[in-house]
Amino acid sequence: MSIAIAIDRAMIPILTAHLGWLPDPLFLAEVAPEEGYEDAVIASLVATVIVIFVVSRLLEELCVRVGLPAVLGDLLAGIVLGASALGFLVFAEVGGEVNPSILNFLGTVTGASPEAVTKAYDFQMEALIDRTATSGLLVLLFVTGLESDLGELIRVGGQAATVACSGVAIPFVLGSLMLIYVFHIATIPALFAGAALTATSIGITAKVMQDIGVLKSKEGQIILGAAILDDILGIVVLAVMLSLVATGTVEIATIASLLFSATLFVLGAVLLNRYFAPIFEAIADRFKSPGALITLAILFLALLSLLGVVAKLEAILGAFAAGIVLAGTSKREELQQLFQPFVYIQTTVFFVTVGAKVDLSVINPLNPENREGLIIAAILIAIAIVGKVAAGFVVISKDKISRLAIGTGMIPRGEVGLVFAGLGSATGALPKSLDAAIIIMVIVTTLIAPILLRLVFPKSEEVTQTEAIT
Amino acid sequence: MSIAIAIDRAMIPILTAHLGWLPDPLFLAEVAPEEGYEDAVIASLVATVIVIFVVSRLLEELCVRVGLPAVLGDLLAGIVLGASALGFLVFAEVGGEVNPSILNFLGTVTGASPEAVTKAYDFQMEALIDRTATSGLLVLLFVTGLESDLGELIRVGGQAATVACSGVAIPFVLGSLMLIYVFHIATIPALFAGAALTATSIGITAKVMQDIGVLKSKEGQIILGAAILDDILGIVVLAVMLSLVATGTVEIATIASLLFSATLFVLGAVLLNRYFAPIFEAIADRFKSPGALITLAILFLALLSLLGVVAKLEAILGAFAAGIVLAGTSKREELQQLFQPFVYIQTTVFFVTVGAKVDLSVINPLNPENREGLIIAAILIAIAIVGKVAAGFVVISKDKISRLAIGTGMIPRGEVGLVFAGLGSATGALPKSLDAAIIIMVIVTTLIAPILLRLVFPKSEEVTQTEAIT
Repeated sequence: MSIAIAIDRAMIPILTAHLGWLPDPLFLAEVAPEEGYEDAVIASLVATVIVIFVVSRLLEELCVRVGLPAVLGDLLAGIVLGASALGFLVFAEVGGEVNPSILNFLGTVTGASPEAVTKAYDFQMEALIDRTATSGLLVLLFVTGLESDLGELIRVGGQAATVACSGVAIPFVLGSLMLIYVFHIATIPALFAGAALTATSIGITAKVMQDIGVLKSKEGQIILGAAILDDILGIVVLAVMLSLVATGTVEIATIASLLFSATLFVLGAVLLNRYFAPIFEAIADRFKSPGALITLAILFLALLSLLGVVAKLEAILGAFAAGIVLAGTSKREELQQLFQPFVYIQTTVFFVTVGAKVDLSVINPLNPENREGLIIAAILIAIAIVGKVAAGFVVISKDKISRLAIGTGMIPRGEVGLVFAGLGSATGALPKSLDAAIIIMVIVTTLIAPILLRLVFPKSEEVTQTEAIT
Repeated sequence: MSIAIAIDRAMIPILTAHLGWLPDPLFLAEVAPEEGYEDAVIASLVATVIVIFVVSRLLEELCVRVGLPAVLGDLLAGIVLGASALGFLVFAEVGGEVNPSILNFLGTVTGASPEAVTKAYDFQMEALIDRTATSGLLVLLFVTGLESDLGELIRVGGQAATVACSGVAIPFVLGSLMLIYVFHIATIPALFAGAALTATSIGITAKVMQDIGVLKSKEGQIILGAAILDDILGIVVLAVMLSLVATGTVEIATIASLLFSATLFVLGAVLLNRYFAPIFEAIADRFKSPGALITLAILFLALLSLLGVVAKLEAILGAFAAGIVLAGTSKREELQQLFQPFVYIQTTVFFVTVGAKVDLSVINPLNPENREGLIIAAILIAIAIVGKVAAGFVVISKDKISRLAIGTGMIPRGEVGLVFAGLGSATGALPKSLDAAIIIMVIVTTLIAPILLRLVFPKSEEVTQTEAIT
């Protein structure tokens, strides 16, 4: 038996089952009757999957060990493997040169012609890897919604809302206006890039605050509350942007109507979190069979995503709303656990593809043509940092609090910023240089935030806290 | 926007991501340029998935409430939905009439021609549902291996081994010889059907023993140990049978060599459970990033499945062996949890398809042509029960133990019996009537065991136990 058949019979079902799809030999055979094409797709799939997971887990490990979020490792793995560097993960629709050594390797293993190998590789990247990434994105948004603790948000209340709203508005307005009026970039890409500056990734800030013992401080609580609302606002803005891209118009009426319906959608989810969650819980509790909960959750998730699309918004908004609703049930932790394997597999693929699709050559400083792109990237980074720090100073409080610490805590962008970059390049809304600038902005803010946080967080407060605990 | 596009954009990624595959519109478009074909595949997929999960969860619930295993609910859901009854789940390769109302519904919803609808339906059942089932089977065997507690097996030792070996040998030999010499059935189907009588499903016995408080009794411990070994022996026999079917010969030399290599394979896994498990654990422990464990497990699972195929055995044997090896690590429970969502989704689809593929009309008692088939089914059931009870009497023990209770505890067949039926019909090794007879045997032994167990378990022992505890 040839090794290709052996791999097909043994490894494909396992690897693919966990990625979230199965290639179909029937299809493969009908699409391309060329000699070796099917083997080339299989070999290319197995090689790609193994490379993605080995490299991403190693770089995740590196990041986690130095105190950075794992998602940064996935992003770096994508950049290293993608068109910008090694050329192992290249999407035909994005462009870039596939590393010839991987094509030669596939050709040698399968005996397929160079044309068949190239076709098989391109097909596999688009039809299999890219679709897995899409599933990963929906799962990510569902789980993000599931992790949004609305109760905590309400507890911190007004102050968090002030920080979140101004932290979304300031970078968005500053960024978009700068791109439109200073760099003469078209309205839609400018708005999209401005929107990508909005969403805070709380994971890293929470970890640093825990390390220095200020997680339970007034500042810490405001940051955590604001970050939850920030995610919600960010995803609403993203849904509106994607719908704008789809319609292609930037009339105020369209924007207002989209913003209105997206807000309504999320507010509906918040109400359902209160009033439908107990019903869902009661239904789930009636089932004693162990598989019922995941089925109910998936049906609900599918239904709300469908509603998102039918309401002319986005499936991702529906997935996020489904998460918000189910966060109100006592099944929340169990659901997080049930969806975790899909996060580990599919969402990793999503972040890796975001990294792989970015073309860093457009901001290569050695190329003089790239000067404007580099300036734009630097300015976006500056706005991303200054905008959030400024938002910290908007807080109204009678207590003595460090507004600088609050603003600094909101600096790191992460998952949602990468979702903007990924969808912006996938829909063609973002030109390559803006896409690269956003990725760089996410990396820089994530790297810089822990350092700044340790500098600005009030020392006296920290000591008081630690003393209070001990 | 049409509802079909809405469903495509919102529901498909979610539903399919959790089934373990993604249909590819690109493919669909290239394979069949007919009007409405792609919509028909999507509509048919969504309808099938929803019907499978709603019906299976409801019937699982029914089973669980009356104290039967959930897997019986999946099997019954398949029978109800399959060619034997409603005709909603019909596989073209198995035959049977698709319910015209479902085809009409799909035609109305999508506007596709009757030919396109039929083609789309058949394609979807084979390429998507059937492949999900295959993934589910591999996951099932991996998890079965993971649940095999070799330590417990060794503790009970000799007595459990006696029960397991004779409980595999007696029904296998009796069943095969009866089919060959009395009913003149060809050797391979006869051996396959005989082999399907071997594997005990311990879940239900364990539950009944727990209910009546005898799980920790001497008998209970022997039953649990024997059932673990029983699974191992059953899967070795299954791998040998499948390889026999593939080669098509029944020479003693072939059987002996297959049996030898399959045994060696499993013994290798048992050794690795002892000597490689700590290495795997050490590697897994070196990673602090949360997604590393599932990646390591999947790579190991894929590797051993590949090894199973390369060794001219089966991928399922490799998947089972991988489970056995990793059962020796401290990560066992964490891995069970990580793979549980795949069991809930994909393995459910496997059991439903096993039920859907059985053609119960071949044992319809109203049809006089079916008399022989019915007699065979009745005799297989009798051998299945008598063979296991007899195995109980083989135990050598100085203590006073109820050999009848031990034998009775081994009666229920379940998951592995259904794997035999499913693979037997998929490979064409089992004719329809034998396939149906095995399904009925699984159902009857599962239904009858709890009743018999409550009758035969020594009451005095039970009371002593309860007293000892209180």
